[in-house]
Amino acid sequence: MSIDRRFYELLGPVSVSDLATLTGAAVHGDSTAQVTGVSAAHNARRGEVCYFDGAKPPAEGDISPTAVACFVQEKYVEALPAGVVALSVAMPRSAHTLAAGSLLRLRSWTDQPQADVQTNIHETARIAPGAYVAPGAAIGEQTVIGPNAVIGPGVQIGRDCEIGANASVQCALIGNQVKIYAGARIGESGFGVTAGPNGAEDAPQYGRVIIQDHVTVGANTCIDRGAFDDTIIGEHAKIDNLCQIGHNVVLGRSVLVASFGGISGSVTIGDGAMLGGRVGIADHVKIGAGAQIAASAGVFREIPPGDKWGGTPARPIRQWLKEVAWLQKQTGDGKRAK
Amino acid sequence: MSIDRRFYELLGPVSVSDLATLTGAAVHGDSTAQVTGVSAAHNARRGEVCYFDGAKPPAEGDISPTAVACFVQEKYVEALPAGVVALSVAMPRSAHTLAAGSLLRLRSWTDQPQADVQTNIHETARIAPGAYVAPGAAIGEQTVIGPNAVIGPGVQIGRDCEIGANASVQCALIGNQVKIYAGARIGESGFGVTAGPNGAEDAPQYGRVIIQDHVTVGANTCIDRGAFDDTIIGEHAKIDNLCQIGHNVVLGRSVLVASFGGISGSVTIGDGAMLGGRVGIADHVKIGAGAQIAASAGVFREIPPGDKWGGTPARPIRQWLKEVAWLQKQTGDGKRAK
Amino acid sequence: MSIDRRFYELLGPVSVSDLATLTGAAVHGDSTAQVTGVSAAHNARRGEVCYFDGAKPPAEGDISPTAVACFVQEKYVEALPAGVVALSVAMPRSAHTLAAGSLLRLRSWTDQPQADVQTNIHETARIAPGAYVAPGAAIGEQTVIGPNAVIGPGVQIGRDCEIGANASVQCALIGNQVKIYAGARIGESGFGVTAGPNGAEDAPQYGRVIIQDHVTVGANTCIDRGAFDDTIIGEHAKIDNLCQIGHNVVLGRSVLVASFGGISGSVTIGDGAMLGGRVGIADHVKIGAGAQIAASAGVFREIPPGDKWGGTPARPIRQWLKEVAWLQKQTGDGKRAK
Repeated sequence: MSIDRRFYELLGPVSVSDLATLTGAAVHGDSTAQVTGVSAAHNARRGEVCYFDGAKPPAEGDISPTAVACFVQEKYVEALPAGVVALSVAMPRSAHTLAAGSLLRLRSWTDQPQADVQTNIHETARIAPGAYVAPGAAIGEQTVIGPNAVIGPGVQIGRDCEIGANASVQCALIGNQVKIYAGARIGESGFGVTAGPNGAEDAPQYGRVIIQDHVTVGANTCIDRGAFDDTIIGEHAKIDNLCQIGHNVVLGRSVLVASFGGISGSVTIGDGAMLGGRVGIADHVKIGAGAQIAASAGVFREIPPGDKWGGTPARPIRQWLKEVAWLQKQTGDGKRAK
Repeated sequence: MSIDRRFYELLGPVSVSDLATLTGAAVHGDSTAQVTGVSAAHNARRGEVCYFDGAKPPAEGDISPTAVACFVQEKYVEALPAGVVALSVAMPRSAHTLAAGSLLRLRSWTDQPQADVQTNIHETARIAPGAYVAPGAAIGEQTVIGPNAVIGPGVQIGRDCEIGANASVQCALIGNQVKIYAGARIGESGFGVTAGPNGAEDAPQYGRVIIQDHVTVGANTCIDRGAFDDTIIGEHAKIDNLCQIGHNVVLGRSVLVASFGGISGSVTIGDGAMLGGRVGIADHVKIGAGAQIAASAGVFREIPPGDKWGGTPARPIRQWLKEVAWLQKQTGDGKRAK
Repeated sequence: MSIDRRFYELLGPVSVSDLATLTGAAVHGDSTAQVTGVSAAHNARRGEVCYFDGAKPPAEGDISPTAVACFVQEKYVEALPAGVVALSVAMPRSAHTLAAGSLLRLRSWTDQPQADVQTNIHETARIAPGAYVAPGAAIGEQTVIGPNAVIGPGVQIGRDCEIGANASVQCALIGNQVKIYAGARIGESGFGVTAGPNGAEDAPQYGRVIIQDHVTVGANTCIDRGAFDDTIIGEHAKIDNLCQIGHNVVLGRSVLVASFGGISGSVTIGDGAMLGGRVGIADHVKIGAGAQIAASAGVFREIPPGDKWGGTPARPIRQWLKEVAWLQKQTGDGKRAK
């Protein structure tokens, strides 16, 4: 992954040997290799350390051969691509989390401004009382930042945007004519949990949120930043109040998400799809362009483009409604169930 | 509709001819007629422009004969009431949205105070550190505004109220002894989406929120302002955390809404109705007085007064429970489904 | 219950006679007895007034014999334990609420600092711009309070914690290495509603929130304080965005709650239990250690340790999936329902 230095500080490079000491891992390969960043396994680039924690041995493509090193259980050391240094350890993901903390650091609300970064607030932008714009942020022409809103270090906001009262934005690049209503939370850490030696731990979240032009984000809605990639909200997408958009989600153009929409991590939703109220979508599911999902549906698998689905678990809406009617008939007024 | 000038600025009048130029519409009638406001079609008053975008021709009463003009598809031009100027256009609702922007404007957080409007904070009211009270607001006797809360321009709050930390209130009239907990969002724009030439657009929201005496609003709950009418919360209504109350909703007296209650736009709920946790109600549905809705229900149609309903789609609770038990019996331990 | 004076002011003692006058109750017993606090009935201690409002007479253990007095309907006056003064009244719970207000008071955002209480912010703690730390709070070593966050009177926060932008915390004791993301609401009043003479009333909420070490609380999540006891979040528990944790809930170690998790009042969840997205749990339900609950489930009864459940109403996941498949088979493609 590519780290955006406006949001994260690079702390490395760190040697493989140092990561081994930090995590208690055994090195299988060149311990002097230098590590500069972290990544998921499938797309790790030169200098990046990843992890593999599958129940079966890694398949072709699971681990990028350009990774410098990979935390892995000892039994899979031999299964890594040639040239990737193995760091064998009992809990690879937890070790990776620990390593990440020595390589990257989210810029803090209370950091000193970076010497080489300018804060850039357009002269026609208006910052309401109590709003806080952190060093290194950029606010475009005619954009209004509401009272007591918070804009994080390095955040870029385009022109003609409205940021509501008490909203907060961090680790985000925001286009033009975007509206973010009161209390929305853009760019918080996603929900990535891994097992550690003493209990559950938070997995590292070093991505961003990209919000394209003409997007509207409802009040108290949350859009998490990506883990190792970006969360992306396409042009003209309209998101109602109290929705949750997880890390790495990609929403297409003009996608509509009604209230309490819950889009789990790494879901992709095609252009023009429409989600009724309190629709939930499980992680990594793909929703086709123009699909329509009825209110209250719980979606656990792919929906083809243009389809209408409903129910929990979601299925084509005709099938769902047929089941509802049939079941009622079996048990309804004056009829004994057979 | 009647526009509350404490919250909105009137920008007109604008001639029908000007609106035609702005929206690319063709005028059928008096192009010099003056337009002062916008409205929904069924209750448009003198001077107001509305739109009609039905799939079938307008029926009696669909379009108020007092409207000055109406955006409409060309095929329905002749179907408008006599005296209403037709503005024919391919996308009537989108044109209406554009027109609204030239007639009305939400007062901004950063406007200069209005010369003729006083801010009126009672001497016994207490404003905590960091709270922002905008010009033109009124805060009653003994009312406490929490730290970093935000009160919008022209908002009226009665006596003995508590506004929580980081809560925000705009476009709202609030009675006495009302409690609004931390992070609640009162008066944000409702979720009205219309198709525009380049993708989804936000429909205009020019109403208010009315909260009557003794109401309690939970933490991080959102109550949207009306679109062309008001959202109304009746006396002694009690709303839990993280609920969503859509535009134009009318809640009766002592209505109870447990956490994650989702009340879609234009729903009406009668006095004393009780909603369990995460109940969702589809738009325009009526819930009778004293109705009880079981937790998790998804309500798609009217519930009569005093009835108990549950399930998704919701049905009388006895029927729902009968279905649940019957289905379990068909498939349960040691029994083969027939 | 034990009242934490850092959060509540004791207004009493008040005589039983005075409470009778305040509430219109009739005294059956010693009207000069002094009342110092309020409590639930089963664990009321010396000096505390409770209420009983059951549909059947109180059973052994329902009312603590150490209570000084108990509001009760007249028909149950004789059923109270010996030595507990009966205060007979038509609406016992409403009377108790009224009495509570004369005995206890939540310290307000705008109170003068208490003379004998120090504010204690460690020299290495960092308070971001716009954050408000109320008098009597303590902030530990290296802890960061985000911009426009609010920390209430007497709140104790340990070391190496992160409190997000616009978050608020009151009536809470927070351990070390705790992360509370932006907009989270810790310690607001729980949803306790009682019938009063003029409509629904808020029941008193005089407890606290205890958050143990290494807990993470997601953005815009709400954790209510206890009513008469504490809400407790165990070590390493990880709670996603937009969750609701009700009053008196006890979460074990390393419990995981995904987005839109709704945990109703007095629920207990054992160590290591995992809740998928938008799981709802009804009040007073027990979830065993290591239980797994599928996304979208609505849980109305106890789940044994280690079990996997799903559906609404929730049942063992195998049974739920069997029902889903069977129902689909009865009504699916080319097959007529029998």
